[in-house]
Amino acid sequence: MFARYKDLVEEGLAGMVPFPGLADLNIPMQYHLGWTDRDGNRAATPASQGKALRPTLCMFACEALGGDLGQAVSAAAAIELIHNFSLIHDDIQDQDAERRHQPTVWSIWGQPKALVAGDSMQCLGDLSVLRGAQLGVSPATAVRVSRILTEGYLEMIEGQCLDLGFEARTTITTDEYLHMIACKTGALIRCSVEIGAALANDDPEVTSAFASFGNYLGRAFQIRDDYLGVWGDEVATGKSTESDIRRRKKSFPAVFALDRASGGARQDLHRIYAQEELSDSDVERVMTIMDELGAPQYANRLTSESAEQATLALAAVDLPGWVRDEVDQLVDFLARREF
Amino acid sequence: MFARYKDLVEEGLAGMVPFPGLADLNIPMQYHLGWTDRDGNRAATPASQGKALRPTLCMFACEALGGDLGQAVSAAAAIELIHNFSLIHDDIQDQDAERRHQPTVWSIWGQPKALVAGDSMQCLGDLSVLRGAQLGVSPATAVRVSRILTEGYLEMIEGQCLDLGFEARTTITTDEYLHMIACKTGALIRCSVEIGAALANDDPEVTSAFASFGNYLGRAFQIRDDYLGVWGDEVATGKSTESDIRRRKKSFPAVFALDRASGGARQDLHRIYAQEELSDSDVERVMTIMDELGAPQYANRLTSESAEQATLALAAVDLPGWVRDEVDQLVDFLARREF
Repeated sequence: MFARYKDLVEEGLAGMVPFPGLADLNIPMQYHLGWTDRDGNRAATPASQGKALRPTLCMFACEALGGDLGQAVSAAAAIELIHNFSLIHDDIQDQDAERRHQPTVWSIWGQPKALVAGDSMQCLGDLSVLRGAQLGVSPATAVRVSRILTEGYLEMIEGQCLDLGFEARTTITTDEYLHMIACKTGALIRCSVEIGAALANDDPEVTSAFASFGNYLGRAFQIRDDYLGVWGDEVATGKSTESDIRRRKKSFPAVFALDRASGGARQDLHRIYAQEELSDSDVERVMTIMDELGAPQYANRLTSESAEQATLALAAVDLPGWVRDEVDQLVDFLARREF
Repeated sequence: MFARYKDLVEEGLAGMVPFPGLADLNIPMQYHLGWTDRDGNRAATPASQGKALRPTLCMFACEALGGDLGQAVSAAAAIELIHNFSLIHDDIQDQDAERRHQPTVWSIWGQPKALVAGDSMQCLGDLSVLRGAQLGVSPATAVRVSRILTEGYLEMIEGQCLDLGFEARTTITTDEYLHMIACKTGALIRCSVEIGAALANDDPEVTSAFASFGNYLGRAFQIRDDYLGVWGDEVATGKSTESDIRRRKKSFPAVFALDRASGGARQDLHRIYAQEELSDSDVERVMTIMDELGAPQYANRLTSESAEQATLALAAVDLPGWVRDEVDQLVDFLARREF
């Protein structure tokens, strides 16, 4: 499925970036998208690119409902641009020097330029979605799609706020965590599916079923992401598996462990998470506690449950067999992926 | 004119900020808009607020063409939010600790939160303009208005790039400078007028005449701003008049002086602008050179010319007498203002 939409999505993105007039912001943007090196030379292998999950979901939802893929291209590109803009700003916020094994935009060009590169990518996302009106999307649908995307992006910011708030806390319930990821990651994934569906049909119930599918998909995706952030293979994920613990990130395994641990384990966790910096043995101790509490198994169970709920959300919608098959493959891939 | 639209504009803004779910981002946003102190207490005097120039222009253009002011409110609020978001990010970029005699958002809440507060204000701007569709604006017009705003904002970013590029250069022509300010400040001012007109009429020539009016108005506004940044009254403007020179800002007086100076004055300027930090006597020397070259008079001439061109741009449009009178007052105010 990812391969099928690749060319169209790339075409949509290439219609926006580089953008005439944005001068030397174009290289940081192309670099961040994995297209060029820091000097603007086209990358030999596009290995550093992301999965393009969101635009793929948008295109798939549109095709699944018999929509015109050509009309979905600019929205799909818009979503990918909004997602990537948020990553550029996230990296500034979190002071992350690396992403996907590469130095981040701010760490090469400095914070002021990275900030503006992010702002401009966000703006190109807005513009891309509005361009849909030139591809035959009706103005009413274009407004609706813009709204879904803008509101989804606002939810993403809410999620970032919640996540920042978690940093200072040691007790976070699983429900609070699930609400946070539903906003921070889930909203844009849901939007991708919802927009694809909205472009292809006018039945609010069908679009809402797809939105719900996207919601559960987003949850499965994020919990898997959190799992991989602790127990994943560093080479496959492009992230240091230690970093989530070392950075005392309140991802699912940590939330779970802080919630469930008792006795000495609980004391250790609270002591370790109260420190500014973690030693190697701190990181090891946290991992041991997580293992003892069954955190990896519990994370996997939550992922599987969310994956099932995603599939169920589409049960009432009349869909061709190939769509059901691909839904199953997609859900399976997101729940089991190693990268 | 500013007083006439004040309540409506404030109502439009209050419909967006504070925004449910944005939790502790709401206080930095309200604080930046001059509504509250840093603890979220409503400000006793709204003295720290800006002029609300852009939303006022939007409302005025709409009313001048007999449009429905109620339909312009959400667009006017959107423009003010986009403008203010850009200020929050500008302050981070420029590391400015004060704006309008108050500590800037990043200097109180830190860069990460200021970055997200800016992003969320931008998003609320996007959302506000889309909400116009609920106020009776047709979807086609809503898409058009969104596009004007998004493209204008993109031009603003282009202007920021050009401005950043100027920092490293000592030779900048007046034309290059005028192009930079046409993007950086002019675009959003032009948009304000253009959007107000687009909401009130369907004649592209009329809207384009208003856009051109906005362009010249923006130029007059910015050159006056640059003038005040060097020769203005510190108390009235809320900016330190020394700061533009001390920070070696390539505003109009500096561009003009670097372009026109010769002999010893030229050598002095190049020496001073090549330094990392300027002493009091450096600042004085620069001001003396600017005076000797007639920079203040030239800046005033350019402002007056732009103001005249602004008025001329509307000459061919059929407008009631009260509109012409208010155009004259507005142009006069922007060209002569002391704050």
